[in-house]
Amino acid sequence: MEVKVEKKYGADLSSIKEAQARINSFIHKTPVFSSDSLNDLSGKNLFFKCECFQKGGAFKFRGACNAVLSLDDDQASKGVVTHSSGNHAAALALAAKLRGIPAYIVIPSNAPKCKVENVKRYGGQIIWSEPTMQSREDTASKVLQETGAALVHPYNDGRIISGQGTISLELLDQVPQLDTIIVPISGGGLISGVTLAAKSINPAIRILAAEPMGANDAAQSKAAGRIITLPETNTVADGLRAFLGDLTWPVVRDLVDDVIIVEDKEIIEAMRLCYEILKVAVEPSGAIGLAAVLSDNFRKNPAWQNYKNIGIILSGGNVDLGLLWDSFRK
Amino acid sequence: MEVKVEKKYGADLSSIKEAQARINSFIHKTPVFSSDSLNDLSGKNLFFKCECFQKGGAFKFRGACNAVLSLDDDQASKGVVTHSSGNHAAALALAAKLRGIPAYIVIPSNAPKCKVENVKRYGGQIIWSEPTMQSREDTASKVLQETGAALVHPYNDGRIISGQGTISLELLDQVPQLDTIIVPISGGGLISGVTLAAKSINPAIRILAAEPMGANDAAQSKAAGRIITLPETNTVADGLRAFLGDLTWPVVRDLVDDVIIVEDKEIIEAMRLCYEILKVAVEPSGAIGLAAVLSDNFRKNPAWQNYKNIGIILSGGNVDLGLLWDSFRK
Repeated sequence: MEVKVEKKYGADLSSIKEAQARINSFIHKTPVFSSDSLNDLSGKNLFFKCECFQKGGAFKFRGACNAVLSLDDDQASKGVVTHSSGNHAAALALAAKLRGIPAYIVIPSNAPKCKVENVKRYGGQIIWSEPTMQSREDTASKVLQETGAALVHPYNDGRIISGQGTISLELLDQVPQLDTIIVPISGGGLISGVTLAAKSINPAIRILAAEPMGANDAAQSKAAGRIITLPETNTVADGLRAFLGDLTWPVVRDLVDDVIIVEDKEIIEAMRLCYEILKVAVEPSGAIGLAAVLSDNFRKNPAWQNYKNIGIILSGGNVDLGLLWDSFRK
Repeated sequence: MEVKVEKKYGADLSSIKEAQARINSFIHKTPVFSSDSLNDLSGKNLFFKCECFQKGGAFKFRGACNAVLSLDDDQASKGVVTHSSGNHAAALALAAKLRGIPAYIVIPSNAPKCKVENVKRYGGQIIWSEPTMQSREDTASKVLQETGAALVHPYNDGRIISGQGTISLELLDQVPQLDTIIVPISGGGLISGVTLAAKSINPAIRILAAEPMGANDAAQSKAAGRIITLPETNTVADGLRAFLGDLTWPVVRDLVDDVIIVEDKEIIEAMRLCYEILKVAVEPSGAIGLAAVLSDNFRKNPAWQNYKNIGIILSGGNVDLGLLWDSFRK
């Protein structure tokens, strides 16, 4: 499927290039790794874009930094607020710290410890909520009213999508021969930005979403032709439990070529390979792209045989070591 | 101490540049990482040369590749042999595989499992020995006689030292402002190569060795003015148990500025920081440089106050996850 990228998606190549100019001196340009062992295992040439090495330990800093730097001085002075179980929270706290403004972070009580530690490390002001989306949003609204801070949504925000899209600008510069990029999907901010940038530069490139079986709302949404949400999610990939928003859904609907569903056990095996072969700490949500390319769902699909040079976004590395080890032993 | 690097050391800038030309298309040019969090913690600007991402998971591939590619065709056809508890073994097996020649690897029975797995992954032919140096050497001699293969010593070999020295060529190109490099010390192959190259390029640069308390033979050797060996070693850093050789000792004696001794608990804490903050799997021997720069021995020494831009060689990443986790919980 080749679709011309139009203005209608809330971000475009121009807003993504503006984001790059805005954040470039603040972010890490992350390296791309390759491994003969993993190439042999997959039968493909894999190129791992290591966003786990991004500041804050995940790609989220790109979008958060772009959003915070986009605020005018008056808005900025009142600070920023968000609700997030982890990586966006830490990223926003760090971006706010760099600008010297307060960050109010609503965190559900079931967030991974290491992600909460990151928020604290960057000086974010934590407000706890119940682990439901309703409680998260209510608590954030309350903080918003009390402080006048600007809401920075984790993904359904053009500034966030544009920031995440800078990954493709870097990646296609580092590995111009890519014919496919596999991207974790949750709320869709990452995949929207990556897709809009990549398909603008190379309309023939394929974008595949990787999604856990226990939170497969994006695959269901693609099949139904409308946003599907789930009554509950159940996956080790704590960063992939969100649902698509009205800015990210159109990109997923129109431009994402397919969704690969993987089991949690495949995600855990991919984490192990990242650790043992790449020597990289990757969280479950971050390892799902490798899980996808090694899955039977991918290998056995004839539509995917002819693609050789595959970019995989290792989106984050914030994983409690105890969880990792306990997962491996199961 | 500024000492002119002379020809007498078994390797020099010229042999190191030759090694670089020989191995450059086979090795990974490893990235240099920095972290604001670790800079804050240390009070220095730290630059981590990530040799854990080198092929085989450690710097050892540089030297092994140089040695294997230096053999003439007749020598090469009979293969190579070594005895090693781990990273050199895997590196030599991989280098031999690339050249299509056999590698006979004598491994002591107490070698870490993940390192043995690497040897197998690269097709090395494993011959087990007892965990004593005598048994290792005797077994290697026997293999040597039977096969006519060329012995490639893990460190006391000019080809190995020259290969490891290519790290400094890369590192000083990546971070020209370095005033200090901290290097793990064991048999001295790594630090000899790094020192000879770095001091040839910048005679004012300081080289500090990092050594575990339970295998502090290099510090004792520097103090005594001659090679000291120990009746036994006791450290979590399984890669740092060897003693200096007649090619590496003169470099350590003349050109290495000092040795920083660290405790095992400091090494384990450094591994944890590498994992949690850098998102990098680093083995105990590889994390010792970070342990050194954070140690009281380093912080409280007035001689080391004025140096700011410090290169740290994360020498390898081959660590059994179970060991890592068990260490953290102690």
